[in-house]
Amino acid sequence: MTNSKKDFTHLSGSDMPRMVEISEKSITERTAVAVSRLHLGKELSEMLKESGSTKKGPVLQTAVIGGIQGAKRTAELIPMCHPLPLSGVDVDIKLDGEYAFIQVTAKTTGRTGVEMEALTAASVAALTFYDMCKSVSKSIEIESIYLLEKTGGKSGNYRKK
Amino acid sequence: MTNSKKDFTHLSGSDMPRMVEISEKSITERTAVAVSRLHLGKELSEMLKESGSTKKGPVLQTAVIGGIQGAKRTAELIPMCHPLPLSGVDVDIKLDGEYAFIQVTAKTTGRTGVEMEALTAASVAALTFYDMCKSVSKSIEIESIYLLEKTGGKSGNYRKK
Amino acid sequence: MTNSKKDFTHLSGSDMPRMVEISEKSITERTAVAVSRLHLGKELSEMLKESGSTKKGPVLQTAVIGGIQGAKRTAELIPMCHPLPLSGVDVDIKLDGEYAFIQVTAKTTGRTGVEMEALTAASVAALTFYDMCKSVSKSIEIESIYLLEKTGGKSGNYRKK
Amino acid sequence: MTNSKKDFTHLSGSDMPRMVEISEKSITERTAVAVSRLHLGKELSEMLKESGSTKKGPVLQTAVIGGIQGAKRTAELIPMCHPLPLSGVDVDIKLDGEYAFIQVTAKTTGRTGVEMEALTAASVAALTFYDMCKSVSKSIEIESIYLLEKTGGKSGNYRKK
Amino acid sequence: MTNSKKDFTHLSGSDMPRMVEISEKSITERTAVAVSRLHLGKELSEMLKESGSTKKGPVLQTAVIGGIQGAKRTAELIPMCHPLPLSGVDVDIKLDGEYAFIQVTAKTTGRTGVEMEALTAASVAALTFYDMCKSVSKSIEIESIYLLEKTGGKSGNYRKK
Amino acid sequence: MTNSKKDFTHLSGSDMPRMVEISEKSITERTAVAVSRLHLGKELSEMLKESGSTKKGPVLQTAVIGGIQGAKRTAELIPMCHPLPLSGVDVDIKLDGEYAFIQVTAKTTGRTGVEMEALTAASVAALTFYDMCKSVSKSIEIESIYLLEKTGGKSGNYRKK
Repeated sequence: MTNSKKDFTHLSGSDMPRMVEISEKSITERTAVAVSRLHLGKELSEMLKESGSTKKGPVLQTAVIGGIQGAKRTAELIPMCHPLPLSGVDVDIKLDGEYAFIQVTAKTTGRTGVEMEALTAASVAALTFYDMCKSVSKSIEIESIYLLEKTGGKSGNYRKK
Repeated sequence: MTNSKKDFTHLSGSDMPRMVEISEKSITERTAVAVSRLHLGKELSEMLKESGSTKKGPVLQTAVIGGIQGAKRTAELIPMCHPLPLSGVDVDIKLDGEYAFIQVTAKTTGRTGVEMEALTAASVAALTFYDMCKSVSKSIEIESIYLLEKTGGKSGNYRKK
Repeated sequence: MTNSKKDFTHLSGSDMPRMVEISEKSITERTAVAVSRLHLGKELSEMLKESGSTKKGPVLQTAVIGGIQGAKRTAELIPMCHPLPLSGVDVDIKLDGEYAFIQVTAKTTGRTGVEMEALTAASVAALTFYDMCKSVSKSIEIESIYLLEKTGGKSGNYRKK
Repeated sequence: MTNSKKDFTHLSGSDMPRMVEISEKSITERTAVAVSRLHLGKELSEMLKESGSTKKGPVLQTAVIGGIQGAKRTAELIPMCHPLPLSGVDVDIKLDGEYAFIQVTAKTTGRTGVEMEALTAASVAALTFYDMCKSVSKSIEIESIYLLEKTGGKSGNYRKK
Repeated sequence: MTNSKKDFTHLSGSDMPRMVEISEKSITERTAVAVSRLHLGKELSEMLKESGSTKKGPVLQTAVIGGIQGAKRTAELIPMCHPLPLSGVDVDIKLDGEYAFIQVTAKTTGRTGVEMEALTAASVAALTFYDMCKSVSKSIEIESIYLLEKTGGKSGNYRKK
Repeated sequence: MTNSKKDFTHLSGSDMPRMVEISEKSITERTAVAVSRLHLGKELSEMLKESGSTKKGPVLQTAVIGGIQGAKRTAELIPMCHPLPLSGVDVDIKLDGEYAFIQVTAKTTGRTGVEMEALTAASVAALTFYDMCKSVSKSIEIESIYLLEKTGGKSGNYRKK
C-alpha cells in the first residue's frame, strides 16, 4: 500500500478493482473541504434574489440537506470507497451574481480520508440545487467540483494551488 | 402545475419543498443526455495512456458502473425527484489529451423526465473516476457537468446552445 | 386474494410472511392521507414561535424533506410492501399551541394503495422534527399517527370516523 | 456545541441545517429505550389472540425484524443523524387487551446517542405491525411514540417523567 | 439488441458494461422461479427439528423476510439490472433430512424478466438462514442456487432440464 | 451471550429475532474468506476464453465490483447483522475449464466477525457474473457458496475441513 512511486492503489496486482486494505493505517482526525460552483444565469439568479427568503430559503436548505444526505451515501455510490463514520458535515451555499458557491467541510476520526465524502456532498448539493430550479432554467451548469483542502493521514495535508 | 410564467414547481404555495404531482402527465418515451468533463493533468493522463488496457480498462469500467448504479439511486439522492423506471442507461467515457469526457444517455417511459438521472450518472461516474485515480493525483478537477439534450414531455425538446 | 371474511393477506397458507401477488389488480389512481401529531411542550413551542422564520423555517423544511424522502423508502422499510411509483407526495406541517400537526398526501397510479407510503412519511417527518428539536427538549412525544383517508382500489374509499 | 442555554444544535450560525460536529465528544457506551403503542381495536386483537402462534407469531416477528432493520437505516432517514455503529437492538412486542406495546432497546459505543435509532425502530416496528394487519382493520392507530430512557453521554441520563 | 447468435447483451459495442435499452420490449406478465439448497449437517438439522416451532419458526420466517427484502434490492445489488415493479414474491422453505430447500417465485408486469430478482431472493434467504444458525454450526454450505423456470418475454419460456 | 452449549444467539429468550448485543466483545482484527463456484457450461466458458480480455475483462470486473458493493450492504440485507466498518474487501475470480471460482477476503477491526460480509460478497459477485452472461446461457448454476476460513474473535479461528 505504500508506494515510493505513484500508483493506482484501487487496482490489485492483477489489475482488478479492489477495496484497498486500511487496517494498518492509524486512526486520526481527518478533514476535507470540497467546493462546487453553479452558473445560474441572469433570470434565475434574479428570481432568487428578488424572492428574498421565501424562495431562496427552501431552495438552499433542500440543497444543503441533499448534500449532507449524499455524504452519508458515499460508500454506496463510489464502488471502492470504505464505509466511514462521519463525525460532521457542513454545507455552506452562497449566491453571488449569477453564481452559487457551495463549500462542504467533512470530518471523521478514522483510518482513511474523507475527500470523497466532501466531493460527493458538493456534487449532490449542486445537483439538488439544479433540480429545485430546473423549472425556471434548464441551462444551469455545474462549472466546477474540486477538492480544496485535506488534512490528516499519512500522505500529509493538501491544499489546492 | 402549468405556469404561463416560469416558477419553482418544487415549492408549494406556502414555499415548502414538495414532490410535485405528476399523475395527470402523459406517459411518453423520454431521453436525456448529460455530459461531464474532468481535467486529469499531464501525469495522470500519460500514466493512463501508457498503461494501455491494463490500468485504463478497469478505471473506466469502474466509473461506468458507478455512473449506472448512481442513475438508479437518483430519487434517493435528490430529495424532490420521483422514482423512475429507467429503461436504459449508457455511460461512455473517452480520454483525450489531459481530459476525460463522460457522456450519459438515460431513457424511460414515464410521466416525468430523466434529466436528473442522466446528470446524477454523469456526476457519480466522474466522482468514481476521481476516486480510482486520486492515489496518482489529488488535483483532478470536475470542470463541467451539464444537460446536453432532453426529449419527450410536454415542455418540448431541449438542446444546450 | 379476495376474502369474503377478513384475513391476514400478508401471510401465506402456511402462515409465512409473503409479498401478496397483485398482478391481477387493476391500475387505478390511488391517494392516501396520513396524519401525525407531536406534543412539543411549552418551552419548545414558544422558542419556535419567537424565532420567527429563522429557526422554525429550517426545522419545518427539514421535517418536510425527511418525510418525502421517507415515503420513497417505504418498500425498503416495511418488509411486505410493494415498490410503488409515487406520483406525488405533499407534507404539510402546522404549529398550533404546544402541538405540531403533520398531514401527508401521497398519490400513485398503480395496482396497490399508498397508505403505507403516507404513514411512513408522516412518521419520518415526525421523527425528523423530533431530531431537529431534541437539543431543546427530550420530552417531545409523537402522540398519534393514523390513516385519515384512502381512495382508489377495489376495497373502496376509507375515511377515519 | 456546548450551550449554557438550550439551542437548536442542528442549525448553523446562519440557521441552515447541519450535521453537528461530534469529533470532540468522548466515546462512551450509550443506550436508549423507546416505546410505541398501537390501538388495534376489538376485532383484530381477538383474531390475533384466537389464532394462537399461527398468525400472531409471524405478525410479531415481521414487526420485530422491520424494527431492527429500521434502526440500521436511521442515518439515511433522519437527515441530520450521524451514522452509528449499533452494538445491539432488541425489539419486544406484547399484546394486552386491544393494544400492542412495543419497546426497543438500542445500544452503541460511540460519540453520540442512540435515541433516534431507538425511536426509528419503534416507529418502523409499529408501521410494520400496521401493514401486517391492515387487511383486517384499517383503523389501527399508533397512539404514542416516545423516548423512555437514555444513558451515556455528557448531557447525563434521561428518564421520562 | 436482437441477436441471431448469442451475445453478451450487457456489454456495449466497445465492450463496456451497459444497462441495456428495453423501451422497445412489450409489457407482459413475467414470472421466475429460483431454488437454493443448504446443507445444514446433522447437529443443526436435529436441533431445528427438536425445537419445534419455537426455534424453527423464527429462523425460517427471518429467512423468508430476508429473501423478500432482498428481491426488492436486486437493481441496487446487480449493477446492470433494471429497477422492476415486483407484483409479488413468495419464498417457501422446507426442511428435509440434513437439508433446507428454498424456492422463490417472483412476478412482475413489465418489460424485462424477473430471474435476477428470484435468484437474489433465493441467495439472500439462504444467507439469512446461514446467519441465523451460524452460532450452532459454521460449516453450513449453500450447495446450489439456480433458475428453475421462467415465463413471459420474447425469448420464450425456460425450464431447467 | 456465552453459551457452554451451542445455541441460536440471534433468538431472544422468548424466541424472537434479535440483533445480539456485542458491546462487551473486544475490538480485534478479523478476517473471513468465502468461496463461490459457478458452473458455466461449455458454450459460455469457451466464448469467454476466445473473447480474450474484450469480453472476459468487463464481465469479471463487473462481478468484482458487484461483490465489493454487496459486502458493504450486508447489514441491510441480512436482518440480524451488525453494521461493520470494513477495512478491506478483495474479490478474486478465476476461470478454469467450465467453471468460475470466486474467492473473497473481507477484513475489519471490530467487535464481530466478517463472515457474512465475505459470504454476501461471494454471493453477489456470483449473481452478477450470472447476470452478465445470462444472454448467452440461462443454465449457469451457482454450485457452492461456503466459508473457507475465519480468524479473530473469541470463538477462535475456523478452517473448513
